[in-house]
Amino acid sequence: MLKPLQAGMKAVLVVCDGLGDRPTKTLNGLTPLQAANAETFDRIASEGECGIMDVIAPGQPPGSDTAHLALFGYDPFKCYPGRGAFEALGVGIELQPGDVAFRCNFATIDSDGVVIDRRAGRISSEEARKLSEALKEIRIEGVGGVEAIFHHSSEHRGVLVLRGEKLSRCVSDVDLHRVGVKVPDPKPLEGSIEAERTAKALKEFLEKARRILADHPVNRARIKRGLKPANVLLPRGAGTLPEIEPISKVWGIRGAAIAGGGLYKGVARAVGFDLIRVPGATGTVNTNLRGKVEAAMKALDEYDFVFLHVKATDNVSHDKNPRKKVEVIEWISRELAPLVDKVSDRGFYLALTGDHTTPSEIGEHKGDPVPLAIMGPDVRRDDVSKFDELSCARGVICRIRGVDLMRILMNYLGRVPLFGE
Amino acid sequence: MLKPLQAGMKAVLVVCDGLGDRPTKTLNGLTPLQAANAETFDRIASEGECGIMDVIAPGQPPGSDTAHLALFGYDPFKCYPGRGAFEALGVGIELQPGDVAFRCNFATIDSDGVVIDRRAGRISSEEARKLSEALKEIRIEGVGGVEAIFHHSSEHRGVLVLRGEKLSRCVSDVDLHRVGVKVPDPKPLEGSIEAERTAKALKEFLEKARRILADHPVNRARIKRGLKPANVLLPRGAGTLPEIEPISKVWGIRGAAIAGGGLYKGVARAVGFDLIRVPGATGTVNTNLRGKVEAAMKALDEYDFVFLHVKATDNVSHDKNPRKKVEVIEWISRELAPLVDKVSDRGFYLALTGDHTTPSEIGEHKGDPVPLAIMGPDVRRDDVSKFDELSCARGVICRIRGVDLMRILMNYLGRVPLFGE
Repeated sequence: MLKPLQAGMKAVLVVCDGLGDRPTKTLNGLTPLQAANAETFDRIASEGECGIMDVIAPGQPPGSDTAHLALFGYDPFKCYPGRGAFEALGVGIELQPGDVAFRCNFATIDSDGVVIDRRAGRISSEEARKLSEALKEIRIEGVGGVEAIFHHSSEHRGVLVLRGEKLSRCVSDVDLHRVGVKVPDPKPLEGSIEAERTAKALKEFLEKARRILADHPVNRARIKRGLKPANVLLPRGAGTLPEIEPISKVWGIRGAAIAGGGLYKGVARAVGFDLIRVPGATGTVNTNLRGKVEAAMKALDEYDFVFLHVKATDNVSHDKNPRKKVEVIEWISRELAPLVDKVSDRGFYLALTGDHTTPSEIGEHKGDPVPLAIMGPDVRRDDVSKFDELSCARGVICRIRGVDLMRILMNYLGRVPLFGE
Repeated sequence: MLKPLQAGMKAVLVVCDGLGDRPTKTLNGLTPLQAANAETFDRIASEGECGIMDVIAPGQPPGSDTAHLALFGYDPFKCYPGRGAFEALGVGIELQPGDVAFRCNFATIDSDGVVIDRRAGRISSEEARKLSEALKEIRIEGVGGVEAIFHHSSEHRGVLVLRGEKLSRCVSDVDLHRVGVKVPDPKPLEGSIEAERTAKALKEFLEKARRILADHPVNRARIKRGLKPANVLLPRGAGTLPEIEPISKVWGIRGAAIAGGGLYKGVARAVGFDLIRVPGATGTVNTNLRGKVEAAMKALDEYDFVFLHVKATDNVSHDKNPRKKVEVIEWISRELAPLVDKVSDRGFYLALTGDHTTPSEIGEHKGDPVPLAIMGPDVRRDDVSKFDELSCARGVICRIRGVDLMRILMNYLGRVPLFGE
């Protein structure tokens, strides 16, 4: 049984995507966090308790979806339902139990059906939105009782939801993450009638989409301009709603999430956060970070728990730009200052961490642990004074798993019931 | 297969209940362990290897029962059978498989059946013992083949055991841990015939107990003296014997337990320790600690493994008295000196830790990790020289779980068989 919330006990979780890094040649053997002059980050470490965290498990590179499930306290090994559902929730689709959702790329194939560009020449959002409108007309006829819902998200990306009885997420990816290969048909990944129906419905949708795209004015105009047409859809990551208790039930808290990227919004919605929309929160380095921080400060007045996600650190890591990552870290650190002031003044808690390590000289998610610092009135303040991968490893939190972070924060908020007597 | 015991390899586990704490205002930001001048504690840290321990899981506040199951090497998530059985074992009832045991409070209700005192005006042990004698006459008639056994423990506390076929621990608590509410009837928590029979038998026992208590000379005398009568029994924490292998089977050791509090004796008995009775071991700050330490030293001659439990640190924490906690820590530290000398002289092992954190400015169990130090001939002695929550976190043990401690100690004793070849 949950105890009534202790008055005034609130917490903020700040996740900088792909924040963890490795020693880089570019920065003379330092990680970007080590090289950065990030006053507010270091303040959180100084006033807090520090450690490192294996978001999934030691050495396990997390996906952004599984990482956030873990950070919100859900063991992704037990409840990960594929990425598609989070994408659908992230673009605002009211996903229902039984729905199967896919991330989709608009892509380009040649006349032999071979993929020549997985992003259709980086087609613009405006063009892709027009194409998406046309795809909304598609009706599934070959599989009874199944409806298709298509939704553009950003640039070359969209989400497809199949809705109806007897569907399954056990169907193969059509997007093979490679160019130079023929687009395969979706196949059932198990012998069930549900998987077969889903693969068949998806195949029908994709064939009809190809016919619509081939002839669409947007694509004819692109060809005329010497650009690659978006003449095929490549779905992947079939997913369903996770079967979990929302954070409001698990901990008895009201949570608000502030994020730019659709996936992060989707995971947050799936576990029961209210989304706070911030104009200009794009999930890129050009995001309206100041607006997001202001929204987080405001949300703290109304909510018990606020999740603030910043994607930019991951973007510059994938771009293999350690120097730019240093700049982005310093920028985030500066912008966080008023939030950290408010948390400190009010006696709230704040945890600063990453969802995974993206080494900025490699540009891929890796399984190295991420640094973690928690500040708040009752933490065991240690003598770590710099927020980076090596300094934090000397802190009193030592090394924990991502799935334990939420319980640790809720313990400070007095939200974890006794186990036993 | 277990190897024969290596000659002379023994270990002591000293658990100070509720030892872990948080930085306190009273002690200028220090924890009681940090503030204490505890020479023997610090000696164990200095000569040993140190770390911190999540007795159950990071952030999870442990009950005293689940905590000790974990410290004895049993995963409470798998084998926790409710608290009642440990209470019954602790007061000396020879619990049998199938028995369902309850902790009971003698309490006071008004004429409307509303609880006005959960401890019957802190009724004396002597009075409660007399009332308990009268309750022993109760026979269950409405449920076939069920016998009731009632046993006084201390002050307002007692233990009820229902014995017979087809019983279950899935019945609701009658004690709601609150005054001002009507005493509820016990209810089955599942649809089984066993749960129904147990709830029915318990209801009958409680009704008969009320009739006996209402009329008992002890209560009539209390009312005459203006004291609250113990006119109702409030059972809670239905429990059965855990289905586990005793430590003698798991590790091939003989274990002795020295504790004042009934619960700790009960858990120790449940996992196969022999209980060493020490006169004056009360489970309070007035305990005969010197006698307990002497008993532990003596037990080391006969047993392979000795568990020494000291409750006083938890008592003063629940009383929200950080200064008193410092004193109690210093007292325990002094009294442990001869035991540590003996362990050191003989080349034995000793582990010092707590079963959970009870912040002495909050007075409740919390899920923060506890400090741990292990001394003995083969430990990796680190440079931690102070036994407290922050210093130990810098030790070479880093951060472990409670359920792993016993295996770590048994490893030093050469008691852990190879896994694989």
